[in-house]
Amino acid sequence: MRVPPLVIRHAPVLNLHYCQQVSEGISLEELQLAARNHALPLEALRWDITPVGLHYLLTHYDIPDVDPVAWRLEIDGLVQSPLSASLAEIRARPAVEVAVTMECAGNGRIHIEPRVVSQPWLLEAVGTARWRGTPVTGLLEDAGVADGATDALFTGLDRGVEGGEEQDYARSVPLTELLQGDAILAYEVNGIPLPPQHGYPLRLIVPGWYGMTSVKWLARITLLDAPHDGYQMRHSYRLRQEEDETGDPLARIQLRSLMIPPGIPEYMTRARTVRAGACELEGRAWAGDAEIVGVDVSADGGESWAAAKLGDDSLGRWAWRSWRFAWSAEPGEYELCCRARDSEGRRQPLEPTWNLGGYGNNAVQRIRATVVSEP
Amino acid sequence: MRVPPLVIRHAPVLNLHYCQQVSEGISLEELQLAARNHALPLEALRWDITPVGLHYLLTHYDIPDVDPVAWRLEIDGLVQSPLSASLAEIRARPAVEVAVTMECAGNGRIHIEPRVVSQPWLLEAVGTARWRGTPVTGLLEDAGVADGATDALFTGLDRGVEGGEEQDYARSVPLTELLQGDAILAYEVNGIPLPPQHGYPLRLIVPGWYGMTSVKWLARITLLDAPHDGYQMRHSYRLRQEEDETGDPLARIQLRSLMIPPGIPEYMTRARTVRAGACELEGRAWAGDAEIVGVDVSADGGESWAAAKLGDDSLGRWAWRSWRFAWSAEPGEYELCCRARDSEGRRQPLEPTWNLGGYGNNAVQRIRATVVSEP
Repeated sequence: MRVPPLVIRHAPVLNLHYCQQVSEGISLEELQLAARNHALPLEALRWDITPVGLHYLLTHYDIPDVDPVAWRLEIDGLVQSPLSASLAEIRARPAVEVAVTMECAGNGRIHIEPRVVSQPWLLEAVGTARWRGTPVTGLLEDAGVADGATDALFTGLDRGVEGGEEQDYARSVPLTELLQGDAILAYEVNGIPLPPQHGYPLRLIVPGWYGMTSVKWLARITLLDAPHDGYQMRHSYRLRQEEDETGDPLARIQLRSLMIPPGIPEYMTRARTVRAGACELEGRAWAGDAEIVGVDVSADGGESWAAAKLGDDSLGRWAWRSWRFAWSAEPGEYELCCRARDSEGRRQPLEPTWNLGGYGNNAVQRIRATVVSEP
Repeated sequence: MRVPPLVIRHAPVLNLHYCQQVSEGISLEELQLAARNHALPLEALRWDITPVGLHYLLTHYDIPDVDPVAWRLEIDGLVQSPLSASLAEIRARPAVEVAVTMECAGNGRIHIEPRVVSQPWLLEAVGTARWRGTPVTGLLEDAGVADGATDALFTGLDRGVEGGEEQDYARSVPLTELLQGDAILAYEVNGIPLPPQHGYPLRLIVPGWYGMTSVKWLARITLLDAPHDGYQMRHSYRLRQEEDETGDPLARIQLRSLMIPPGIPEYMTRARTVRAGACELEGRAWAGDAEIVGVDVSADGGESWAAAKLGDDSLGRWAWRSWRFAWSAEPGEYELCCRARDSEGRRQPLEPTWNLGGYGNNAVQRIRATVVSEP
C-alpha cells in the first residue's frame, strides 16, 4: 500500500492553507481532517445538551496526553502577582456551570464557492454542553491586573506546525470581554471530568464566541498590553479577501439555525424519505451576540416562509433555542429550509459570501426531501 | 446557498453503493459520511481503553431516539417460549464486562485502488471499550432454542434506505458462534450507560467480529433456520469481485497494527516533524481470530524490519495489544511502517487487495516523518 501524495489537487498555492481547488473533488488532505474532526450528526440536534461524543470537535494538532498531577496553570505577564495553581486548587475555587452553544468559525466552509481548502465542514460543526468551572474574572482578580494590560493570552499544550510556523496553540481575548463576560476555566462537561479531546484537565470557555477562542489543554494565561500576534490571531481566523489584507478578527458566533432532517435517510446520499401526513419539523437556532427572536421555515427552497414556534430559553442566554414547525407533508419533492432572525433585526443570508479562510458562512440550510404516501 | 447535487462524480453506476470514481477527488456524498462517522484520532491509540467520544462510530441511518421506559427486547422465532424483557429486567440478569477491540470492516477503504465509494475510512475505524452487559447465551437458554434453529437475527431500531430497500438495520449471527463465544447484550460502555450513538439502551457485542455484527439500538432477536437474507447479509459486508457473485461474508477481524504518529503534525497535511534522538514508537495490534505474536517496525518503507516489544495481554483475548519500539531517529526523511504477526503464521500484507465493497484492507500503515536536529 502506497499512501497517495499528501499535497494534491491544489491550484497554485497561495500559502499553506488557503488555495482554491482545480478539481471539484475533495482532497485526501481534507478527508484526513474530516476523519479527525468530528461533526454533530444533525439528528443529535434533538437533545438540549449534546451527549458527550456527539459535540463537534476540531483539534488543530494532536490531542495531548496530560498528567493531571504534574499539570499546573501559570498566570503571568502584566499581573501584580504571578500565580501557579494545581488542578485541585482550581477545582476548590468558586464554581459555576453554564450551557454554551459552541460553533466552529469554519462551519459551512464546504458550501462556499470557489472552494476554500481547510477542515471541510458541511453545517454540523456545533454542539451545546454544560461546562463547569471557575470564572476567569476571579483568577485575574487574584493575580491582579497590572496597569496597561489589555488582553489575556491563553496558551494550550497542543503543539504543531501551521503556516510554516511551529507553535503551541494560543489565542488572546480582550480583557474587557473577560472581565464583563461569563468566561470560565472548565474542568467538567455534562457532569463528567473533561474527556481528553475536550481539553483535559482544563480549558477556556468564552460563551458566544466561535470555538477557536476557547483554548483547550490550557497551560498558561499571560496578560499583554496588546492582542497576541501569533499565527492563530494574525493569520487564521480573520475575515479577508486577500492574503496581504489585515482583515477583521472573527469573534462572536453569527446567527444560524439548523433543522433535524425529517423522515429516514438513504445510507450513501443521505437523501430523505418522509411519510405523507403531519410531520413536525424541528431544530435549533443560536447567535453569539444577540437573542433569537424567530425562525422561519420554507418547504419550497425559500420561495415562501412561515414562522416556526420557538421553544423556551431555559438553557440560558448562551445556548441554542429549540424551534418546531407543524408541516403538512403531501407527496412530492421538497427543499426544506430554516432561517433565524435575531434581536438586532438580522436574518440569515440565503447565499454564502466568499472570504479567504472560508469563515462565518451562516447561509440557510437546505434539505431535499421526498414525501411519499404510505405504501 | 445552493447545495451541490448529491450524486456526483460517479462513473457509470453499478448499483447504489459500489462504483469507481472517474475523478481522484472525494465526492460530497463521501464527505457527508465522513462528517457523520467518527474515526479514532491515531494519537488516541495511546489509551488502553478508548475514551468515550474517540471510539470509531459508523451509523448507517440516523441515531434513533429511544424511550428507555417504553423500550423492550423481544426474543422470538424458533424458540420454545418467546420472551419480552424491559431494560430493568436485562440489567438484573448476570452481568459481565469485557474489553473489546472493534473495527469497521471497511477500515482502510480509501487506500484501495481503483477507489470504492462508500464511507471513506482511512485507517482509524477502530477503538477499544469495556462493554458491560448480560451474556447472550443465558437469554437464549431462557427462551429455549427450538429444533432446527441455526442463526439469530438481531434487529435494530435504526431505519433507512440502502440499495433501494427500506429496512431496519438487521444482521444474523450463527448460533454456534453465540453459544460458544463471549457475545453480550451491553448496556454500559466504559462504566457509563451507553451514549445514544453507541446503541442506547442495549446493543449486541460480538467480540472479535467486525463492527457491523454488533447491532446497536437492539429491539428484537429472532431465531431462524438459516442465515438472514436481508440487505446487510446478502449484499453488504461480503468479499467479492463482481456484483453477481455470492462471495464470502465478512466475519472476524483481520490482523492489523497501527502506530501513533510520532512527533508533531502540520495542521493541514498531518505531515510529522520529529526531533532527532531517542524516539519511542508505539501503537497497538489486534486480530479477531488469532493471537498477536509479534509486531515488526520499519523506518524505510518496508525495506528492512525489526521486532517491536509487545505489551502484556492484561486487557484479555478480545482487545488489542500494545507495542513499543526504541527508534534512534537521525535527521532525514522516513517512511515508518508497522506489521503484525499472528499465532496462525500470518503477517499483514504490504499492499491492499481490491474487492467490490472495499472491505478488509489490512495492509500496513505508512507514516512519513521528517527528523530534524534540535534548533
